Amino acid sequence: MRHLLDTADLTRAEALAILDTAEEMAAVNDREVKKLPALRGRTVVNLFLEDSTRTRISFEAAAKRLSADVINFSAKGSSVSKGESLKDTVQTLEAIGADAIVMRHWSSGAARQLADSGWVRSAVVNAGDGTHAHPTQALLDAFTLRRHLAAETGRRPEGTDLAGLHVVIVGDILHSRVARSNVWLLALLGARVTLAAPPTLLPVGVAAWPARVTYSLDDALEDAPDAVMMLRVQGERMGGAFFPSAGEYTRTWGLTPERFARLSARPGGALAAPLVMHPGPMNRGLEICDAAADSPRNTVLEQVANGVSVRMAVLHLVLNQDAAAPAPPAPAQEDRP
Amino acid sequence: MRHLLDTADLTRAEALAILDTAEEMAAVNDREVKKLPALRGRTVVNLFLEDSTRTRISFEAAAKRLSADVINFSAKGSSVSKGESLKDTVQTLEAIGADAIVMRHWSSGAARQLADSGWVRSAVVNAGDGTHAHPTQALLDAFTLRRHLAAETGRRPEGTDLAGLHVVIVGDILHSRVARSNVWLLALLGARVTLAAPPTLLPVGVAAWPARVTYSLDDALEDAPDAVMMLRVQGERMGGAFFPSAGEYTRTWGLTPERFARLSARPGGALAAPLVMHPGPMNRGLEICDAAADSPRNTVLEQVANGVSVRMAVLHLVLNQDAAAPAPPAPAQEDRP
Amino acid sequence: MRHLLDTADLTRAEALAILDTAEEMAAVNDREVKKLPALRGRTVVNLFLEDSTRTRISFEAAAKRLSADVINFSAKGSSVSKGESLKDTVQTLEAIGADAIVMRHWSSGAARQLADSGWVRSAVVNAGDGTHAHPTQALLDAFTLRRHLAAETGRRPEGTDLAGLHVVIVGDILHSRVARSNVWLLALLGARVTLAAPPTLLPVGVAAWPARVTYSLDDALEDAPDAVMMLRVQGERMGGAFFPSAGEYTRTWGLTPERFARLSARPGGALAAPLVMHPGPMNRGLEICDAAADSPRNTVLEQVANGVSVRMAVLHLVLNQDAAAPAPPAPAQEDRP
Repeated sequence: MRHLLDTADLTRAEALAILDTAEEMAAVNDREVKKLPALRGRTVVNLFLEDSTRTRISFEAAAKRLSADVINFSAKGSSVSKGESLKDTVQTLEAIGADAIVMRHWSSGAARQLADSGWVRSAVVNAGDGTHAHPTQALLDAFTLRRHLAAETGRRPEGTDLAGLHVVIVGDILHSRVARSNVWLLALLGARVTLAAPPTLLPVGVAAWPARVTYSLDDALEDAPDAVMMLRVQGERMGGAFFPSAGEYTRTWGLTPERFARLSARPGGALAAPLVMHPGPMNRGLEICDAAADSPRNTVLEQVANGVSVRMAVLHLVLNQDAAAPAPPAPAQEDRP
Repeated sequence: MRHLLDTADLTRAEALAILDTAEEMAAVNDREVKKLPALRGRTVVNLFLEDSTRTRISFEAAAKRLSADVINFSAKGSSVSKGESLKDTVQTLEAIGADAIVMRHWSSGAARQLADSGWVRSAVVNAGDGTHAHPTQALLDAFTLRRHLAAETGRRPEGTDLAGLHVVIVGDILHSRVARSNVWLLALLGARVTLAAPPTLLPVGVAAWPARVTYSLDDALEDAPDAVMMLRVQGERMGGAFFPSAGEYTRTWGLTPERFARLSARPGGALAAPLVMHPGPMNRGLEICDAAADSPRNTVLEQVANGVSVRMAVLHLVLNQDAAAPAPPAPAQEDRP
Repeated sequence: MRHLLDTADLTRAEALAILDTAEEMAAVNDREVKKLPALRGRTVVNLFLEDSTRTRISFEAAAKRLSADVINFSAKGSSVSKGESLKDTVQTLEAIGADAIVMRHWSSGAARQLADSGWVRSAVVNAGDGTHAHPTQALLDAFTLRRHLAAETGRRPEGTDLAGLHVVIVGDILHSRVARSNVWLLALLGARVTLAAPPTLLPVGVAAWPARVTYSLDDALEDAPDAVMMLRVQGERMGGAFFPSAGEYTRTWGLTPERFARLSARPGGALAAPLVMHPGPMNRGLEICDAAADSPRNTVLEQVANGVSVRMAVLHLVLNQDAAAPAPPAPAQEDRP
């Protein structure tokens, strides 16, 4: 894999290869000693032109566990804030030694623009571009779903897909790169996807997506979901063109205590009980109630933990393209204190 | 040791174990090659919700010398500034891989709240919470005092306490977590403590502390102190409810050239001459004059250097709870260039 | 070499020793495995009291490739912003464990003041002080020129100087530490230097510099330059006391498409064709046109890449003063994944 830009680019085989590699990384992460030498001497640059502490430190942790050097570059106080072009910035970072550029950018399409430009030889990993894509988030969501499905069916997750699962994505689909990346990946892996959102928060052209659309969350929750993915709501979208008010949003689109109770009382289509997913950070009391946020079926922390494994897999695959197989677990002996 | 929250929690044996471990760390730090493999593969998160560059980089240096990975997380630009709860923040950090959370928080009691909450399995190290506690600062102060006492009496510091020493703490006791943590630890280790401060800068309930209180710095300096610990004064406390003016503060509570000269002319109770301690950064000309700041009896830089050894010891002890003994010094051979 | 403060201090032998060491570092950087153990267990502090992301991450990458620990300290939110003196700051950093202090400071002369003060035992590397000096920038420029000269003459660069080269430096000489440091180093290494600038952007005393001065860029470009070094223009200097307007600047002092075409049509004095150098980040359309910025004779990215090798050499030389020879390349075996 040369870059990771968008889940819409991935073949089923590529998506499974990432998830399977992430399973191997997760196996290493579960052990006491966490360092793999796979990227020793390689430099990963986190180029975050939009703030995102959570995603940045997840990539940072992933790179460090693979023994890479990490350089964090943010817009603030940098040459970018002085008007340097993206081209000059990334070529400078590559000249300093970047082997991979993990980029968060405010502009939709920025990651592909960079990968297609020929400006750099580095691998490009999209860590979120505008409202467009956030492929590692979708991959970690799929990874989380696959693990639950495998655990309940007594299979090993490797090589399997998400056939049989029904996932409902709820909220501000219009501005959500998380939703976009998930729709394509979930469909690719055989899951059924429902988007539940008000018309003002749905993009033009959503009819062409591989997902059903409903304007009623309550209807969607009746349809035996295996997972309900609550999107984070941006408070600044409330009370304006997009939605009348936060209170109104919670009443119609929030996972309230009542909805969560109803949801929890029934089995999913494939899973014993529906999961509650969230990309974090959660707005407790807005899109999600405390009971749903703190429920054992809530996967938000699993998602975060799986995110490190998935990002390790992605960095490994783009930086060691020859390596068909992931790095073998480090020999325990020489790593122990 | 599971967490380090407050010196008031420590038994004498625990306090001595930290100080003795710090002596072993200091021995390693004094050598050319400084890396120990004790925390290889472990991740220390510096969660600083209040700025403190000095304390943060001291913990960062300590963790790196033990070969830990370090992730710095500050409030600015992070999910915390978007209103994420402390619970969600720390659970996210643990899911990303934190083994220890070193937390600086503006709120008194935050570290204990975190440790008692059951939110995380990680070790919690209090790096300062509001006006409440700053245990590693008190430990490094005690370590510094013990080394001087041992050196002057020709003993080895290990296993010994501070019996016989008289320490005067001067200034804004009311808002000082440094003072609070020192009072309990110094008393625990057998030192005699005097607090010298104006009534407006003393907390309610100070009478119950294991320390004598005086409203006259000059009186306190007559009483053969072995160390005078000058607290940092916050300029914004001057000219308001707490104190009439900075100039007036210096006249009555500052270690002025005159007071320093008088102090230096006499022996301490146990030491040959009194030490001048300060948690840094010093406000030269406010609470401390240049002569006292630059004196060979001023220990501010020893305190900083000892801080790294003490924090190495604390991180080692909370992360390797089974390890009775600290890590042996790294074999020189394989570490040398 | 104890410190690196200013190219005006260097002897020819010292300058060549740095460049030759940088060649060895570059050889290592060109290989797949980039880590050298030369500074393992040593701590490099980047003390950046003025923002400069590019220079900071170049030093950071250099230090990490030599296996040093790096601590970044910036003014914002630190004790410095609370009024701590430089003396107390650097002594604190040394007490925390700094072996070398790489300092960017807004004040001309700050690096020398620090080195001469006796405040610290650490090596001091000047990463730019006010409008005074930026020695590693000049060294990487000389390194870049020497490599081109050697390549075209079929020699190895080691041990050779810049005799025969003509370098034109263009623009705001008055405020440029890059220009100052280059003039002295280029002259020391035998190159001929021309400064092309308007009188308002030339310093008092420039007549005593080892360089010819001209007020016409077009004249300078007629004089068979081997390299034209375009200085970065600060927009805020336009339209005031220094220069009437940005448009006027570009017309008279910019490397416009017309000037670049004329320049490219003729050979240099020693090189087959003139190089276009820039310390970056480039202001496209202001001091440099896109054609010149994107030309294969533009060395801006080589300069950046060479900067890492030069800074590795400098850090190695100041921290391993006994080491006559640079560190041998790391044995490949044990470093590979």
